[in-house]
Amino acid sequence: MKTTIGNFLFLRLRQMGIGHVFGVPGDFNLQLLEQMREGDGPEFIGTCNELNAAYAADGYARMNGVGALLTTYGVGDLSALCGIAGACAEHLPVVCLSGTPPLYAMESRLRLHHSLADGNFDNVRNCLREFTAHTARLTPANAGEEIDRALLACLREKKPVFIQVPSNISYLEIDAPEEPLSPALPASDAERLESAARHIARLLARATQPVLLIDREVDRSGLAQDLTRLAHKRRIPYVALRTGKAMLNEDDPLYAGMFNGRDSVPRVRDLLQRTDCLMAFAPGFSEGSPVPTPKSPPGSARIFIQRHSLTVEGEIYEGVNARDLMERLPDLVERVNGSAEAWAAQARECADPATPAGSATEAATGTAGAVEAASAGTAPEPKALTQARLWSGLAGFFCPGDVIYAETGTALSGLADVRLPEGAKFIAQPIWGAIGHSLPALLGAMTAANDRRHILFIGDGSFQLTAQELSTILRRKLRPIIFLLNNDGYTIERWIFGKDAPYNDIAPWQYTRLPEVFAPGAQVFTATAGTGDELEEALREAGERACACFIELRLDRLDAPEILKIHGPRAAENNYGPRGPQSAHGASAGRP
Amino acid sequence: MKTTIGNFLFLRLRQMGIGHVFGVPGDFNLQLLEQMREGDGPEFIGTCNELNAAYAADGYARMNGVGALLTTYGVGDLSALCGIAGACAEHLPVVCLSGTPPLYAMESRLRLHHSLADGNFDNVRNCLREFTAHTARLTPANAGEEIDRALLACLREKKPVFIQVPSNISYLEIDAPEEPLSPALPASDAERLESAARHIARLLARATQPVLLIDREVDRSGLAQDLTRLAHKRRIPYVALRTGKAMLNEDDPLYAGMFNGRDSVPRVRDLLQRTDCLMAFAPGFSEGSPVPTPKSPPGSARIFIQRHSLTVEGEIYEGVNARDLMERLPDLVERVNGSAEAWAAQARECADPATPAGSATEAATGTAGAVEAASAGTAPEPKALTQARLWSGLAGFFCPGDVIYAETGTALSGLADVRLPEGAKFIAQPIWGAIGHSLPALLGAMTAANDRRHILFIGDGSFQLTAQELSTILRRKLRPIIFLLNNDGYTIERWIFGKDAPYNDIAPWQYTRLPEVFAPGAQVFTATAGTGDELEEALREAGERACACFIELRLDRLDAPEILKIHGPRAAENNYGPRGPQSAHGASAGRP
Repeated sequence: MKTTIGNFLFLRLRQMGIGHVFGVPGDFNLQLLEQMREGDGPEFIGTCNELNAAYAADGYARMNGVGALLTTYGVGDLSALCGIAGACAEHLPVVCLSGTPPLYAMESRLRLHHSLADGNFDNVRNCLREFTAHTARLTPANAGEEIDRALLACLREKKPVFIQVPSNISYLEIDAPEEPLSPALPASDAERLESAARHIARLLARATQPVLLIDREVDRSGLAQDLTRLAHKRRIPYVALRTGKAMLNEDDPLYAGMFNGRDSVPRVRDLLQRTDCLMAFAPGFSEGSPVPTPKSPPGSARIFIQRHSLTVEGEIYEGVNARDLMERLPDLVERVNGSAEAWAAQARECADPATPAGSATEAATGTAGAVEAASAGTAPEPKALTQARLWSGLAGFFCPGDVIYAETGTALSGLADVRLPEGAKFIAQPIWGAIGHSLPALLGAMTAANDRRHILFIGDGSFQLTAQELSTILRRKLRPIIFLLNNDGYTIERWIFGKDAPYNDIAPWQYTRLPEVFAPGAQVFTATAGTGDELEEALREAGERACACFIELRLDRLDAPEILKIHGPRAAENNYGPRGPQSAHGASAGRP
Repeated sequence: MKTTIGNFLFLRLRQMGIGHVFGVPGDFNLQLLEQMREGDGPEFIGTCNELNAAYAADGYARMNGVGALLTTYGVGDLSALCGIAGACAEHLPVVCLSGTPPLYAMESRLRLHHSLADGNFDNVRNCLREFTAHTARLTPANAGEEIDRALLACLREKKPVFIQVPSNISYLEIDAPEEPLSPALPASDAERLESAARHIARLLARATQPVLLIDREVDRSGLAQDLTRLAHKRRIPYVALRTGKAMLNEDDPLYAGMFNGRDSVPRVRDLLQRTDCLMAFAPGFSEGSPVPTPKSPPGSARIFIQRHSLTVEGEIYEGVNARDLMERLPDLVERVNGSAEAWAAQARECADPATPAGSATEAATGTAGAVEAASAGTAPEPKALTQARLWSGLAGFFCPGDVIYAETGTALSGLADVRLPEGAKFIAQPIWGAIGHSLPALLGAMTAANDRRHILFIGDGSFQLTAQELSTILRRKLRPIIFLLNNDGYTIERWIFGKDAPYNDIAPWQYTRLPEVFAPGAQVFTATAGTGDELEEALREAGERACACFIELRLDRLDAPEILKIHGPRAAENNYGPRGPQSAHGASAGRP
């Protein structure tokens, strides 16, 4: 069909289900903004800067399946890059559109602003190439094919792609394909698929203690429903990696808890050590979630399922899609009734998964933070709010279907082991770990799913990186519940090194006054909670209010979830080695 | 000498005159923060995010000769990249230190957080390579040499460099060179230098109307003093490119004004067309400052001086440093007395350089903005503050030695042609043009030169990108004068395309309340001026106050300096071509 390059691009975005594009206007993308507005294109949502647009597109992709942002050449692209790399690390399909200088100007290597003014127009694309599945520079000759190539790579590889649209060609007419995109992966090889499914079914049939290990691929490839069916039919308990949190229902007796390496709760540790059939879904092991090393009985089986291939007892099956496999597999396994109850009974004997290994008592009584803080020289008020109290008090606050955000830092550590209700969505950035991600991600995710309740937990240090996006959230009349954990700086870093070091301090903002400055007249409930009672009151209010809520939680600067107090010093040891600062200061009081 | 890698690095920074390093702590750089604190290292200044740290280091480099920032691997590096690329585009020496994962982890390709968790640790460095003069990954084997290699490249090439410091090696002892760095360029070839200088002296001797064309190299290579000596001795008028503004004294009869291509004021246009000897200093021509094409008399000479080479009448001299040349040249030219006065008299007959070509009357009477705004349908109050009034009213406000910042947008356009007093420093980012640069740049520049008065002009759209850094400015008890031009969105984009388009709108913040939120208790004078009288009052107050001043100027959303009203539509034509949106909407009222 005949259409313009810009209109074809936006038609494709609409066909992919992209209803909103985040970004910042610039002189090389105004033509695309105009084309979005003219036709039936997606709605443009201006963010305060491009990094925040990338995070918003990431959040949008998590709820909508795919997201998009629009930048202007150079300055916009590179500002967004950290967010795009984050989407790459977390395997999220995000389309990055960039308006570039006119094609003739780039081909003639003109000295232009927004470049190094040296005629080099490859450097920006080279950067984006490192963190995307495909980069395209459109020309009238390639646009019809390159647009589809890029978008298919985005959808199939679940990674960002980068499309440069020279400013002077988006109004040019091209011959564009009529048929809609077909993002499905090529079908699996039929014989291999059937063999692999039967191979797994045989292993599951003979296993006495199979376990599923869940990671983000379950979400990215849409396996949750089939996996749930399999787990329930065969009564297989499941454990989640931190990167796979809440991708299967955590409010289910089959859910055993989070795998935290050697700091996993006993129930999880035991399961993974005793299993005679471990079935892992595209586990993205990192140092935060190391490869489980089961002390399994001889002959125990390990199954690793990737998006397009799998390994069963060392045998590699290429050309088998996880999705096809999971559609077939539940039909091949026999229903089991008794063992789930038996397993659940046995599980009840273990410690509660909200409590990390070795600290069950402390966390349960909520004294861990106070003890630690006191030992560091600052004695909080008797009923001061603690991290332990905070995280243990949330279970009753969350509702099925909530979208819950954990910013990197104490929030992610604290929420990781809180069991979420059925249908809850958990949004975090556990691999890339860029602080500041969650607030703009909320803008994006809430734009995609405004019918759900969105609850964000973010530390003060993280908040300051991207704070201005609160203004866009309120300008769009979104109504999230935001808990700002004010603990006077970078507490996660303090637990790694420099507990009292000034470099871990930040400026003490009056956070609860920001909504009125960013969005005068907007209806926002604000509160500050510094005690357990005040937290309870704030939770009650937030649960009842129909408006946006912004609640500052005052926490001691050294209070942290127990797991962080273990992981922090361990990170120092791994990072800095035997002659690092922790060796020099390890023994002295007041400095770690 | 024996020292640790980290201590050697910071010793070098101190030797280079770097007293402050901007950045954000992260688990891969805490060891460097600790080493900075332990020894006699530079002071660390925490910024709200890494992009702002890069802009601050850029500003610091402008005042101090060289600046530095510290990031953490991946997330920090890529967040800072747009600012580093900006320093590259503007030829500023900035040292980017990055704490990376431990060396063994990178060499073993471990799956770590802050990476794609795929074992690839080259991608981040590949990005930085595109926008730096040198990238180094330190090891115990190369640190002694690589640190110096990187720092010398930074100082000599006036570009950023990137130094990755694996977290586990900065406490290791190495053999480091004793002697201090010698950043001077290798001496010029003596014969070539003398030949070139004499060649130029001959041309200047026979020229009747020589002209100097000034660009940023005058600042970066420290040529101002020698150039001033040459200009005064030989009575040569000088013209500045936008990128070279105020690098030679603008309060001097020899200063003719700004070269704005075909929109230059008549005096500048005439000079460049009539000159029989154009001597240009490393002109970084871009589309904003195209190459002058003199209609010169036959036999007229052109001299182009780069940092390490020059071209005189087509003859290329390699191996001659601009600095050596400029030390020698003034001695070779004969003093001229009469002609400067004659030139000055002739110059007085031309239009004032504050007025762009063809609009002398409008701008002088301050009605241009009002007329334009009225034609767009919004009639401002009779005495409403206009851009014309603003820029014409500043000459008396500026003092010798002021540091004056113009954010990209109406501020840069408006200030470009305002003559600054002697010794004034002008800070802008005319090539890279990333909005949001100036506020964090002020943090850096003012840290380097707190004894001078710093005055920033920034639009509301730009301000929102990096607004949080105001908190660091106030936390550091700096006392700038900040004028926030609130014109309700991206006015520079409106003049290119989309005058009333919603994508050019932004959230309406209560700007003057930000200081009390970001820095409770800080002494800040805030005011809002919406009329000419209120501007006068605000200027008077700001001139008298000893504290930080934050003044919001309310301007009509379509009011702009005249030059922007010319350049905006022209940019649309260049960018979008004959079938772009401006052709479709060109004729309709209310939309450009």
